[in-house]
Amino acid sequence: MVRNIKVEHLVETPIEKQQIELVERKGIGHPDSIADGLAEAVSRALCNEYISKCGVVLHHNTDETQIVAGRSNPQFGGGEVIQPIYTLLVGRATKEFEGVEIPAEAVALSAARDYVRNTIVDMDLERDMIVDCKLGTGSSDLRDVFNRDRVPVANDTSFGVGHAPFSELEQIVYGSERKLITDLKKKIPGIGTDIKVMGLRDGDDISLTICCGMVGRHIDDMSHYISIKEEMADYVTDLALKHTERNVTTLINTADNIRCGSVFLTVTGTSAEMGDDGSVGRGNRCNGLITPGRPMSMEATSGKNPINHIGKIYNLLSTQMARDIVKAVPDVQDVHIRLLSQIGMPIDQPLVASAHVIPEDGVNFASVRAETESVIDDWLSNVTKITDMVIKGELDTF
Amino acid sequence: MVRNIKVEHLVETPIEKQQIELVERKGIGHPDSIADGLAEAVSRALCNEYISKCGVVLHHNTDETQIVAGRSNPQFGGGEVIQPIYTLLVGRATKEFEGVEIPAEAVALSAARDYVRNTIVDMDLERDMIVDCKLGTGSSDLRDVFNRDRVPVANDTSFGVGHAPFSELEQIVYGSERKLITDLKKKIPGIGTDIKVMGLRDGDDISLTICCGMVGRHIDDMSHYISIKEEMADYVTDLALKHTERNVTTLINTADNIRCGSVFLTVTGTSAEMGDDGSVGRGNRCNGLITPGRPMSMEATSGKNPINHIGKIYNLLSTQMARDIVKAVPDVQDVHIRLLSQIGMPIDQPLVASAHVIPEDGVNFASVRAETESVIDDWLSNVTKITDMVIKGELDTF
Amino acid sequence: MVRNIKVEHLVETPIEKQQIELVERKGIGHPDSIADGLAEAVSRALCNEYISKCGVVLHHNTDETQIVAGRSNPQFGGGEVIQPIYTLLVGRATKEFEGVEIPAEAVALSAARDYVRNTIVDMDLERDMIVDCKLGTGSSDLRDVFNRDRVPVANDTSFGVGHAPFSELEQIVYGSERKLITDLKKKIPGIGTDIKVMGLRDGDDISLTICCGMVGRHIDDMSHYISIKEEMADYVTDLALKHTERNVTTLINTADNIRCGSVFLTVTGTSAEMGDDGSVGRGNRCNGLITPGRPMSMEATSGKNPINHIGKIYNLLSTQMARDIVKAVPDVQDVHIRLLSQIGMPIDQPLVASAHVIPEDGVNFASVRAETESVIDDWLSNVTKITDMVIKGELDTF
Amino acid sequence: MVRNIKVEHLVETPIEKQQIELVERKGIGHPDSIADGLAEAVSRALCNEYISKCGVVLHHNTDETQIVAGRSNPQFGGGEVIQPIYTLLVGRATKEFEGVEIPAEAVALSAARDYVRNTIVDMDLERDMIVDCKLGTGSSDLRDVFNRDRVPVANDTSFGVGHAPFSELEQIVYGSERKLITDLKKKIPGIGTDIKVMGLRDGDDISLTICCGMVGRHIDDMSHYISIKEEMADYVTDLALKHTERNVTTLINTADNIRCGSVFLTVTGTSAEMGDDGSVGRGNRCNGLITPGRPMSMEATSGKNPINHIGKIYNLLSTQMARDIVKAVPDVQDVHIRLLSQIGMPIDQPLVASAHVIPEDGVNFASVRAETESVIDDWLSNVTKITDMVIKGELDTF
Repeated sequence: MVRNIKVEHLVETPIEKQQIELVERKGIGHPDSIADGLAEAVSRALCNEYISKCGVVLHHNTDETQIVAGRSNPQFGGGEVIQPIYTLLVGRATKEFEGVEIPAEAVALSAARDYVRNTIVDMDLERDMIVDCKLGTGSSDLRDVFNRDRVPVANDTSFGVGHAPFSELEQIVYGSERKLITDLKKKIPGIGTDIKVMGLRDGDDISLTICCGMVGRHIDDMSHYISIKEEMADYVTDLALKHTERNVTTLINTADNIRCGSVFLTVTGTSAEMGDDGSVGRGNRCNGLITPGRPMSMEATSGKNPINHIGKIYNLLSTQMARDIVKAVPDVQDVHIRLLSQIGMPIDQPLVASAHVIPEDGVNFASVRAETESVIDDWLSNVTKITDMVIKGELDTF
Repeated sequence: MVRNIKVEHLVETPIEKQQIELVERKGIGHPDSIADGLAEAVSRALCNEYISKCGVVLHHNTDETQIVAGRSNPQFGGGEVIQPIYTLLVGRATKEFEGVEIPAEAVALSAARDYVRNTIVDMDLERDMIVDCKLGTGSSDLRDVFNRDRVPVANDTSFGVGHAPFSELEQIVYGSERKLITDLKKKIPGIGTDIKVMGLRDGDDISLTICCGMVGRHIDDMSHYISIKEEMADYVTDLALKHTERNVTTLINTADNIRCGSVFLTVTGTSAEMGDDGSVGRGNRCNGLITPGRPMSMEATSGKNPINHIGKIYNLLSTQMARDIVKAVPDVQDVHIRLLSQIGMPIDQPLVASAHVIPEDGVNFASVRAETESVIDDWLSNVTKITDMVIKGELDTF
Repeated sequence: MVRNIKVEHLVETPIEKQQIELVERKGIGHPDSIADGLAEAVSRALCNEYISKCGVVLHHNTDETQIVAGRSNPQFGGGEVIQPIYTLLVGRATKEFEGVEIPAEAVALSAARDYVRNTIVDMDLERDMIVDCKLGTGSSDLRDVFNRDRVPVANDTSFGVGHAPFSELEQIVYGSERKLITDLKKKIPGIGTDIKVMGLRDGDDISLTICCGMVGRHIDDMSHYISIKEEMADYVTDLALKHTERNVTTLINTADNIRCGSVFLTVTGTSAEMGDDGSVGRGNRCNGLITPGRPMSMEATSGKNPINHIGKIYNLLSTQMARDIVKAVPDVQDVHIRLLSQIGMPIDQPLVASAHVIPEDGVNFASVRAETESVIDDWLSNVTKITDMVIKGELDTF
Repeated sequence: MVRNIKVEHLVETPIEKQQIELVERKGIGHPDSIADGLAEAVSRALCNEYISKCGVVLHHNTDETQIVAGRSNPQFGGGEVIQPIYTLLVGRATKEFEGVEIPAEAVALSAARDYVRNTIVDMDLERDMIVDCKLGTGSSDLRDVFNRDRVPVANDTSFGVGHAPFSELEQIVYGSERKLITDLKKKIPGIGTDIKVMGLRDGDDISLTICCGMVGRHIDDMSHYISIKEEMADYVTDLALKHTERNVTTLINTADNIRCGSVFLTVTGTSAEMGDDGSVGRGNRCNGLITPGRPMSMEATSGKNPINHIGKIYNLLSTQMARDIVKAVPDVQDVHIRLLSQIGMPIDQPLVASAHVIPEDGVNFASVRAETESVIDDWLSNVTKITDMVIKGELDTF
């Protein structure tokens, strides 16, 4: 069946030429990101449990983790959590299949605890966090979707959105958080995992406002704290300048009041310990960013099943499509993909697959259209590849 | 102090001229909307309690309600909830102020139950829903923000986004859900409150795909169900045609399989009774819509305190600004507002207030810019008006 | 099959001749009693639901309600609950039987809320209490116990204990709480339902120490409070003197410090609103009393299923046996019954049914033994009568 | 002030001469015992935290742990928990004292997890159990009780009960469970910690009915299971015969149906994994036993604060008194102690301290009375020794 693919020439000021650009990334230790990460870790663990016990992935959606902030008493050189963070894993899962019982909640609990242990490395799971779990059973009529050889049908009428390529600011914002955690934190353990990077580009001036919960027990005193902030700012600015020739300013924890001794100190490296609740789908889109100047979907990607949940698959797919179009099709400045499903129809047959392309000036749009369509069509023909990549953990969801 | 207001001429294909437009609205009984509504009802009740007990609104954020779906056994002419929906109200609230104890959790509980009783009218609160509550105390240093005569300072570095005017499709999608509930449901009680409207415009063809959980006890049998669907479709199409001259098709519950007797029947009028969890900030933006072709913010608006929480105030404010610009400034086809705060700075002094304007062809942009700036500046001067409107319940948040 | 009934002549100082006697009753509004009452109300509602849907009572045990105290700010003429009481209904229930789904948790929730509304009459369920519910499913092999025509088999190796008649002090302690609630509270609404009566008899001196949570909004001021206490003390003393010729002293709320204004005032009439948690099986035995000078069982009676749960049936049965022995067998001063079950054996065939009898002096014990055995044997032959009485609500469990 | 100590000569058939004697012990892995153990572990950890942070023990009561059973799929050589056990720690604790914040809930969580790890050794805390926590704050007027040099005053009008010496059956029942865990389990890891021993003595015939949840992954198959049962029975019978010359029969897991393959197998060694809920104060009294033929108190001992909570102190104290009387006073066959407090009075001044003594025949009761009084008076003079022993963990509470 021919797919309904619509490629439009979008007349729009390209992002790099707009005066104001805003980009945000919530780091892995931000309460919303913790929720996302838990939801996805639980879904992935369930996928593997289902495959191992039943040979196929069964129906589940665990995209609703709720984190209720605790209370803490952070101190230089120490500090302690006063009231543990409360985490409620929420969702649906198939718990029985052809006579086999699947320990969905035990698997979820274990996966969640592993995830926190490996990711929020400064948290002491024995006293800083309660992990609770309420997984209902899925509605039975959805179950058989999963047990077929053909392309699954969409679970909902919903859409996914993606774009490429990243602008300079997008690259910088994304990369800053990633490198602070994967590189600089190894050298400076006082850097917490709850890093929020807010990037503003005003013409050719980029300012990066970074909010980072520092880990008290790795920081001796205020002067040590200040020196870490300086080191972070320099590190991030240097990093940014590899991606841009614009002016870059980096500010760390601007709300600090050094004189009053009021700084952003934590025990566990995340503000979830003290007043910041978190939940799934409130933070980064599946490309890792929040970009109000770009098309976005409200659908949470994390925690949904990767078989037939459009809210997950079409967000991931449209992002992959956009990236491949930019790679494969010459003269595409910018491409936005929107995929709209129709409940009950095969997921390789969206109601519409829409591409908005901003081509380079003077390009023959007909050829751009044809090649773009081709990339989209190829991906739709191979839509279940997204499922496989998710299960293997090859695609980030936030 | 002069405000940093940037008005740009946006070169962009206006929305009505784009080939593909997608607009979605989750109705008031959708699980995500219930969560939004509860969060906002709790915040409003707390505002009033604080004012009544302490004379001022005190720090709180109750923007994290989690709804865990139940299980139900819907039937024509009856049906029952098997496992109650579990609702967890989450957030922070000031519980003590100058020696006065504020019954934050009791107020929250009572407000939440009232909200459900009045809004999700087919739910029996005595057996269909559990309302639980975990409100932490706010961090003390935030508290004094609220007790001052001057403009509050921003609680975070964050942004809000708004646009105007609504496109035809936006008007139609928004209006359909509203009228089905406020008008047609009075005549046809079998219409549930969980109505999701997905609008797709492909050139001049508008299709409205509506998903509505029908209320079994008000529907006699399958033929009655079918006749209600037909009546709804006609009603919505007629409504739409008042806003457009394009072709309109309305589809209701397309996943129904009449022959198998598998239709979207519920006991309570919401899918939260059976498998659909919900949480705050995952559904409609504060203008009531999800619009992937428009700038959007990820910040939840519902449940945040209306004093200093940028995630609420700047979303509401930018939407009001955009609407007033369209009213007050001639020749504006479309305007997008983005407001970026800086933590610790007065909320009437955003780091940047950015307007993207698509003017009518051939207009003098200098004059548009000046008038647009003026509307923005006025609103910023009167930013606390947003707070008042929220407390009085004059602004919708989802 | 002959039953193993052992009737012994117990040589023991009769209770009325012992120097010191201690008897306690926790009133219906005591947190432990609320837990008991909820557990039993839920079980009874489930019994009726099972009978109505399936024709037989199915497996369940709901004997573990946990009440987590709230916080309150009681005042003369008003007051309010600050933090709601949290109540968790816990247990097991059959949720599916021969294709019929039973809404166990919805039934439990509804029954619990009804019970509180009718019993803890000064509580505002909309804001003073959260009712939550976690009912697991029962183990399947227990289920078929319930679906047979013959006598059910014991669910456990366990025992029940009962005695009769009540001593003077036992009558007085029991009657005081009952009459205060059923009679005097009608006249004096300021009397709360949380009444604990501690009776001490030291020789011929009886002192009744009563602790009663008064309801602030029905009491004008301290002098009103004092006058209520006086009226209660007189009322109870008068009541007691109808049962005894001993000296009676009644003390109400002895921990009050009138001068400091520190008295036992509440908003809801129960200390569960402020600091006193409660759970099932921690208060009164099924005869309504705590009697350290009498044999007692640790088994909670409330909330257990009345079909095969020995912890319930044998406690109720032994109490009924003891009462009937006293009525039917002449010259019995005192009788204690202990029934020990054996898991998997029919409940009319206890491993041992032991009666300790204190006969009047000079009585022929052989005849007492024979008549006592006969009463016991009769009751065992009609053991399922206990089940019927429980379902009809004819037997108190605390 | 002279203490009100009443020593009576009790005329009663001594326990060893009664025809029927019933004694029960719930082992450390029984759900009720797990609840008791958690409650006490949490209280002890809080005591130590308070002492370390504030120099004194502050007000708390954590005597209300609720265990909600999970679901499991036990197998020989393996098995797994399907749904984790849910454990809710409940109580009150002082969270702030003279400006110092005490991390009561974090301490409780950590202590609870440590306790389970060390005691329920076959449980995998990462996936088999959820530990949740709801600790309210104590009422402030109780707090100052704890901060004084003089004897604390009673928190309630309540009583404690104790007796000594243990009968033969009591020794046997208590010792069986203890030795199975501390000795035989080392050799046979398939023995679970959830061991319930029900002892019945009918004249000179003792039968011990033992219910033990075996640990599947340490047991190869049914014949291995059977051989373990045989080894346990022989072990217990041998043990018993060291304490008695009566006939002893030991039965293990009598409800097993070997032919159907239905035996008492578990994954974690406790029935909490599958259908048996548990809560504090429902199992063993503080002497480790349930003895319906002896005076008992309903007051839970575990988890209460050891400073002023009569429900704990007087139960422990009366048991210590009874044991010392038996040791120190010649010719006492049996002694029962009951201590009744009066709220607000110093705990070394009970309203009455009552001893029921069964002396050897022909003894001069006057001298027994005097010596008994003396032991009681001494203990009351040193009542805070109980507090110290509790904090050091020298007294068992269940």
